[in-house]
Amino acid sequence: MNDYAKRKLHNELRLLLGTRFSTDSTVRETHATDASYHQGALPNAVAFPKTNGEVSKIVKCCARYSVPIIPYGTGTGVEGAAVGTEGALCVSLSQMNNILRISSEDRDATVQSGVTRNQLNTHLNEIGTQLHFPVDPGADASLGGMAATRASGTSAIYYGTMLDNTLGITVVTSDGSIIQTGGRARKSAAGYDLTRLFIGSEGTLGIITEIILKLIPLPEAVSAAVSAFPTVEAAVNTVIKLMESGINIARIELLDELQMDAVNNYSNLDYQAAPTLFLEFHGSTNTVKESSEVADRIASDNGCIDFRWATDEKERKRLWQARYDSYYAALNLRPGSVGYVTDVCVPISQLTECISRTKSILAKSDLIATMLGHVGDGNFHVVLPLMSGNGDELNEARQISDQIVDIALKLGGTCTEEHGIGIGKKAALEKEHGKAVDIMRTIKLALDPNNIMNPGKIFI
Amino acid sequence: MNDYAKRKLHNELRLLLGTRFSTDSTVRETHATDASYHQGALPNAVAFPKTNGEVSKIVKCCARYSVPIIPYGTGTGVEGAAVGTEGALCVSLSQMNNILRISSEDRDATVQSGVTRNQLNTHLNEIGTQLHFPVDPGADASLGGMAATRASGTSAIYYGTMLDNTLGITVVTSDGSIIQTGGRARKSAAGYDLTRLFIGSEGTLGIITEIILKLIPLPEAVSAAVSAFPTVEAAVNTVIKLMESGINIARIELLDELQMDAVNNYSNLDYQAAPTLFLEFHGSTNTVKESSEVADRIASDNGCIDFRWATDEKERKRLWQARYDSYYAALNLRPGSVGYVTDVCVPISQLTECISRTKSILAKSDLIATMLGHVGDGNFHVVLPLMSGNGDELNEARQISDQIVDIALKLGGTCTEEHGIGIGKKAALEKEHGKAVDIMRTIKLALDPNNIMNPGKIFI
Repeated sequence: MNDYAKRKLHNELRLLLGTRFSTDSTVRETHATDASYHQGALPNAVAFPKTNGEVSKIVKCCARYSVPIIPYGTGTGVEGAAVGTEGALCVSLSQMNNILRISSEDRDATVQSGVTRNQLNTHLNEIGTQLHFPVDPGADASLGGMAATRASGTSAIYYGTMLDNTLGITVVTSDGSIIQTGGRARKSAAGYDLTRLFIGSEGTLGIITEIILKLIPLPEAVSAAVSAFPTVEAAVNTVIKLMESGINIARIELLDELQMDAVNNYSNLDYQAAPTLFLEFHGSTNTVKESSEVADRIASDNGCIDFRWATDEKERKRLWQARYDSYYAALNLRPGSVGYVTDVCVPISQLTECISRTKSILAKSDLIATMLGHVGDGNFHVVLPLMSGNGDELNEARQISDQIVDIALKLGGTCTEEHGIGIGKKAALEKEHGKAVDIMRTIKLALDPNNIMNPGKIFI
Repeated sequence: MNDYAKRKLHNELRLLLGTRFSTDSTVRETHATDASYHQGALPNAVAFPKTNGEVSKIVKCCARYSVPIIPYGTGTGVEGAAVGTEGALCVSLSQMNNILRISSEDRDATVQSGVTRNQLNTHLNEIGTQLHFPVDPGADASLGGMAATRASGTSAIYYGTMLDNTLGITVVTSDGSIIQTGGRARKSAAGYDLTRLFIGSEGTLGIITEIILKLIPLPEAVSAAVSAFPTVEAAVNTVIKLMESGINIARIELLDELQMDAVNNYSNLDYQAAPTLFLEFHGSTNTVKESSEVADRIASDNGCIDFRWATDEKERKRLWQARYDSYYAALNLRPGSVGYVTDVCVPISQLTECISRTKSILAKSDLIATMLGHVGDGNFHVVLPLMSGNGDELNEARQISDQIVDIALKLGGTCTEEHGIGIGKKAALEKEHGKAVDIMRTIKLALDPNNIMNPGKIFI
């Protein structure tokens, strides 16, 4: 794109958006990165639309000049799906933050995609509904970003992921069309499931501008427990038995001994530095009591060395805050570090094997690495705090991540459970899905023939 | 296709499949229709492959001769998705009926797509797992057919639909490639969600040959109840309150007074001929007891005129068999009739309005019509028993169905909750999804450029 064309495009966008169009270098820098070590190129400019119509016009302008478009939520991703591309326009959805409709009776909400999950839940509480939106990836991410990356998180084992909790979306496609997929009906067999095609497409097929979400009744009762084990194997066996028991488990998280040590230090807690499960139960008072008792028994049967309840809400919140902060706790093991994170998921029968082979690989490296994950689903994350700008460390971390992915794939798993492909796992996607990636590419080419929607992401 | 080409194709297929390739007229007739009034053209031949490789070869042969392919499961669909097309080859999946793998620990199963849901559940019971596959559309449909039509049914309110319970599929695409989507990991963010793109695509994007399914622990306890109300409104209000209460409801079905009358006659039961809810609760003994008590109270508060428990397994089975037979019970109101069925789904707050407007339309017609549905999701079906070959009746039924769809769409609903588009609801799909149908068409064209995969279905 020559300077003249660039000036023309920027003038058009400035006319459309006024001060909500920015070429300021700080603004551009903020929108070049996400929460990980991935560093993208500076986008040429950042647009802050407020309406579907504005997004449509932005896309039409960019299409005319063949300018790449990068949708940007809260920048809390960790695989580089939203990082900058040379010559691109970043479209921040942060000012599309209106909650458009709540229906208590239908238990659904329609929101603009810049609304964050905490914003929605706070609103649901303030207006006195007994409902919540349960998908909880830890970060206070935008719901549009969560849809675009098929976000999951700690409560997915019980409440499902964005895949399960999204009823429909409004999306602006590569020619600027505004499309409505799905709808407010709870179920539909009307044609192809475009909603779930766009969910997880990481902005490569269009810009998600609005979302219709399921809302869930708040549980009558909640209890949480922390349970330490002598080995990861004992912890995972406990998880398998818990899942088989059919009891209602809302969250079940594993943290390894080093991660627990990091969490104790960072969040000022005094748990054992041992492989540990964080558990939470939701339901009626009786169900929660019953589930808790079953869990306590199963944990004991599997050699649990410490089992502590946190029924008090304050204590529970502190506990889960510590779990959410565990990424920062891991980084704190090396002050000044940035995080290299990888996440895989395997059939749960293979989880012990996968973790144990991963530990062997990590043992051969001098890098520090912690492990944690949504083990009820067979997932775990490895966090490697790296010194910023150290190319050797980054290369080593990449090799370690590749090896972990290889192990997971051999054990029947996936290269990423919830972080997505972005720019970090493009080769892994090919390894995992082979010819199916050609089908994905065919769809991408059909829906975005000029490759302007977040190019360079997902596909090699 | 000229006769010479046809003979050549048939020779190739006979060479490949031997007696599992048939041009017998009775076989072709059986594969021209589904369980509804929709009547397709006779396919030229029917193939019965046993392996992915054979399906791939069949598709490659047909692609070479540009012969349309119609995948066929158990023929239990009701919107004509599997009915015959002029000059087509019908590919019956009935001999791809092997259960390939069961993992109790991972709670998943891999099956060929001709395995029926009862076959799978019987097997799970026989080998002593405490697991079941819960999606239950009533008919003993093939699991591949259920995936291809995004089947749902009575238990979807609690266990989800095929969308929620399928982890991955093997599909043969229009060029004969064998593609694996998804996998055995419980969750994945690896690229586009092809699994859910193929689910509900009604054979228009490829032939589903294998499926990886989630299995669910059998509930410790089950109880069922039948609850009669003075009005449909009172029944629906009960449903809304039950859903808000957050209790575990495994099934919640509404049958109107005429449908109840038909069921009483057909299944020799003695319930009141009043708007009636069939309820079922799954969970631990305590949870089920608790849920049942809450349901009983909520029903009473909403003017229930008769509430009967069916805790005994035999009684429960009889009750649900009567529910499943309600389609035939409705047809029995006019002996010798065929069924015209339509199903819509609206946000539950609009269900009373939708049913009441539908009743007004039906009242103006001389046709008999019953109503029943999965009301917990806001769905209902209308069954119109028509005299076979009576064009006037068929036209009138079509007009009624169109009007019901219009009402549902105006109330924020969908033109079909679970029956799909097939050939019966192509115009309704356009009305509902407008420009989004263009996106569906673009995908169809990209993945099946010669339009050989079940052509004439879904799209006008």
